[in-house]
Amino acid sequence: MDILKRTRVVQDFPKPGIGFFDITTVLKDAEAFKYVIDTFHKEYTDLEFDLIAGIEARGFIFASALALKMNKGLVLIRKPGKLPAETYKEEYALEYGTNAIEMHKDAISEGDKVLLLDDLLATGGTLEAASKVIEKAKGKIAGIGLMIELDFLNGREKVKNYPIFSIANVSE
Amino acid sequence: MDILKRTRVVQDFPKPGIGFFDITTVLKDAEAFKYVIDTFHKEYTDLEFDLIAGIEARGFIFASALALKMNKGLVLIRKPGKLPAETYKEEYALEYGTNAIEMHKDAISEGDKVLLLDDLLATGGTLEAASKVIEKAKGKIAGIGLMIELDFLNGREKVKNYPIFSIANVSE
Repeated sequence: MDILKRTRVVQDFPKPGIGFFDITTVLKDAEAFKYVIDTFHKEYTDLEFDLIAGIEARGFIFASALALKMNKGLVLIRKPGKLPAETYKEEYALEYGTNAIEMHKDAISEGDKVLLLDDLLATGGTLEAASKVIEKAKGKIAGIGLMIELDFLNGREKVKNYPIFSIANVSE
Repeated sequence: MDILKRTRVVQDFPKPGIGFFDITTVLKDAEAFKYVIDTFHKEYTDLEFDLIAGIEARGFIFASALALKMNKGLVLIRKPGKLPAETYKEEYALEYGTNAIEMHKDAISEGDKVLLLDDLLATGGTLEAASKVIEKAKGKIAGIGLMIELDFLNGREKVKNYPIFSIANVSE
């Protein structure tokens, strides 16, 4: 199945000149959504890992469904101020200014192998920050999985130390 | 399984006097997470519906996993400014000020039966707003499912026209 054909590109969102990859058209299509999760499942069937982490908010969608399917626990990597207990926090650069993500300190235990999922790999800033909070908690990243990777932004470079799997790639 | 025993209550978050129901302890426990989704599944096995809608961000988790399990499409009800195409928007009151949620106008078709999921029913403001955007799109709400309902806040009153199912109730 060609997931990109079922993804809608909305021009000039969130600002002029940007083509936004809208995955809601994939999600609302039960067959396409199932294909995405089945593809992750197939990729990771033989991988040894303990937990699946999803990055807020769209990463939750893939991490949750795959965690259920593969009978793993789910870890939330969230925007600042959302998690109530003690957290590790990691800032990352945006085009203008910075943002940050957090993870509960007790979300993972030392040595836990974590599969990290998100919807889209663009510049890689969020994924890099997410990898860092997992490593602060002494977790090991078993893999990084994306539904779509925008090759031309070269975000892969920021997380090159980990095995990366993308279901669909956009070359230009 | 007693889901409340696996939920962590964090005192004084997000502000003094509030006891915050932290569901991350349930999610990271594969057995508990599976129990929650299985319980929703059992409840809704005989329900006739077309789509599952989840409310950002924690609602995505339950809606996504159940959508996969029940082979339904997933609809995202999001915070303002996140959805790139045309949306219906609904404001709701907070203790101070207002917030809003949005849904793509083409997320559901006229007459679609939608199962609406979220993690927690507290004052009911978000759920009421979510119900309204679904009805603006001429969808029908087939049911509302929550992992936890805080009975003492009486949020159920705000969505009393719909069938409500909660896996766990907190009475005081």
